Amino acid sequence: MITLASDFGSPYPAAMRGVLCARTDARLVDVAHDFPRQDVRTAAFWLRELLPTFPAAVHLAVVDPGVGTDRRPLVVEAGEHALVGPDNGLLLPAARALADGADVSCYEIPVEDPESATFHGRDVFAPAAAAVHDDGRAALDYPPVDDPVDLAFPEPTVRGDEARGEVLVVDGFGNAITNVPGDVLTGRWGTYAHVDGERVPVARTYDAVGADERLLTVGSHGNVELAVNRGRGDAAFGVEAGSRVRLALP
Amino acid sequence: MITLASDFGSPYPAAMRGVLCARTDARLVDVAHDFPRQDVRTAAFWLRELLPTFPAAVHLAVVDPGVGTDRRPLVVEAGEHALVGPDNGLLLPAARALADGADVSCYEIPVEDPESATFHGRDVFAPAAAAVHDDGRAALDYPPVDDPVDLAFPEPTVRGDEARGEVLVVDGFGNAITNVPGDVLTGRWGTYAHVDGERVPVARTYDAVGADERLLTVGSHGNVELAVNRGRGDAAFGVEAGSRVRLALP
Amino acid sequence: MITLASDFGSPYPAAMRGVLCARTDARLVDVAHDFPRQDVRTAAFWLRELLPTFPAAVHLAVVDPGVGTDRRPLVVEAGEHALVGPDNGLLLPAARALADGADVSCYEIPVEDPESATFHGRDVFAPAAAAVHDDGRAALDYPPVDDPVDLAFPEPTVRGDEARGEVLVVDGFGNAITNVPGDVLTGRWGTYAHVDGERVPVARTYDAVGADERLLTVGSHGNVELAVNRGRGDAAFGVEAGSRVRLALP
Repeated sequence: MITLASDFGSPYPAAMRGVLCARTDARLVDVAHDFPRQDVRTAAFWLRELLPTFPAAVHLAVVDPGVGTDRRPLVVEAGEHALVGPDNGLLLPAARALADGADVSCYEIPVEDPESATFHGRDVFAPAAAAVHDDGRAALDYPPVDDPVDLAFPEPTVRGDEARGEVLVVDGFGNAITNVPGDVLTGRWGTYAHVDGERVPVARTYDAVGADERLLTVGSHGNVELAVNRGRGDAAFGVEAGSRVRLALP
Repeated sequence: MITLASDFGSPYPAAMRGVLCARTDARLVDVAHDFPRQDVRTAAFWLRELLPTFPAAVHLAVVDPGVGTDRRPLVVEAGEHALVGPDNGLLLPAARALADGADVSCYEIPVEDPESATFHGRDVFAPAAAAVHDDGRAALDYPPVDDPVDLAFPEPTVRGDEARGEVLVVDGFGNAITNVPGDVLTGRWGTYAHVDGERVPVARTYDAVGADERLLTVGSHGNVELAVNRGRGDAAFGVEAGSRVRLALP
Repeated sequence: MITLASDFGSPYPAAMRGVLCARTDARLVDVAHDFPRQDVRTAAFWLRELLPTFPAAVHLAVVDPGVGTDRRPLVVEAGEHALVGPDNGLLLPAARALADGADVSCYEIPVEDPESATFHGRDVFAPAAAAVHDDGRAALDYPPVDDPVDLAFPEPTVRGDEARGEVLVVDGFGNAITNVPGDVLTGRWGTYAHVDGERVPVARTYDAVGADERLLTVGSHGNVELAVNRGRGDAAFGVEAGSRVRLALP
């Protein structure tokens, strides 16, 4: 199986699908192609959350503002999974999640000139993903990379009854997903916390509060989420990706 | 085969795809993931229109504002089809269409604690769809549900040369799909009707009138549609989902 | 394999998927369903660019403002590929690219009355694509069409160090893709050209210029592209599909 993810929107993903179909019989499964354009960090967050739901697969992921420059194209081995994409930090958080404690190893995909300088998804990464899928990375004799670009998500601080963190991403429902671990709220359903000084119910489900009311909950990613029942948390709390949040815990 | 439908937008459907791929070899086919968020009625309309085009399948459908509350997770048996999703009315109109006159039976998916309270698509419904697909509902010993939440679409009234109805949904082209059965127009192509007092051509095809002109036609769903050739009917007629319409028939 | 492309947005493509699944075991691969509505020329451009990445397949493509009128439904044979869709110019540019110099032949899909007049994607083209896939066009005895509607993209003029052309389409990143062949720039990376009198760097990659800076490059389609690194070229150059551009070459 090969999964596909990108910030290409439409219709460019079709070119990757075509190249893959032409080179391998692997099953293709789309992850998403509407990651915010050229936003490596947000895409890295989602890949880390989503790819571990899949069984062993090759994961082709392209968010690549440096396409055509000398940034390296990578294959990352992570347990039974492999990831293929640019060396810009996109792949490593997901790779560590997929490896589940095992080693993560990176290899450089050789690129021969001349190739398209603006669409490596089609011309470099999709062919490499097909090759890794069909032949295995080991058969491909790619040179190891010891210094891949890494990307760290900011760490929250939790001290006593106060947590300080950051909104990592806002999802399509408007839920503001923070980096604060959900266990600071678990078991405190029905109480109240303060978000930047304002009192907000702590609830296990969105519908535990009235329509259009704010709540703090723990999202499916396991982190604290600023949400509104049947509405948008980002608007109600006035936050966006990167906003700092301070929680006074119940 | 398992079909997938939701109001998740992107990228959450990938988590359902991953869970399904990890549990079953079933073919996966997307129906749509951009139903209007938390709008159970519109999604129920589309599922009723679209699912009967498919051969025997398990249909996983999640529009679920009550996620994590005590609303029940359901499997609905409908002829050769099964539907999996929340007990909020979403599934029954499609189930009746799929059953094609046969009985429709509902069963409650057992949910063990602790589970995510905010993403039952991933944690409850996708695993259940995989189990129903691979083992069959009968093998799963789910308890029957005799009182599923049902959802009725409003009924039009047709008396003599007048029809009163309602716009059920507006599609992406801007066509306003009413609940008035198309047979009130069939065979009257080239004549005129009045919509809320205004004279409008009755046409079998959009292109039978000039560009940007209004028309009444019968859409692919078999209902009367308020449309504009190469334009948006909802804007031209000033209607939206829920708007009442009165037709003086030709 | 059957690929699917349309301007249907969502959820109507699901009806084509359902009909195909009910009639054939062919693998289904989506190309795109968000081509600009009823814009045959833009869709024809993308099909010509994208379909040649695929191996032998039946390509179902529907952008069809004349649905239900007497425009003919076509099957186009093009080398190892076949295309199925309306006779409005949509298919021929891609067919010529897929035929790779071989003949392109057109056949009319017989349509029996009564059929839906507003959704031939579901009721005419998808069934025909399934039949062509499973039985082959030759087995289907469709009558030949000698005068299919064709669609020509405008030709650029390149004289000495001046090229005059047109923006064919703007992609989702905002890159303005012209009809000027890329070889007028190849090998001149690092120099400057003038676009409608303004000096612009000629660069092989987007990231060769600073963030938010304009550049001329050669896109993955092989044509000159007006772009902005990490931004939108269409806005920065003040162009849209159909805009004429004059390049003074380096």
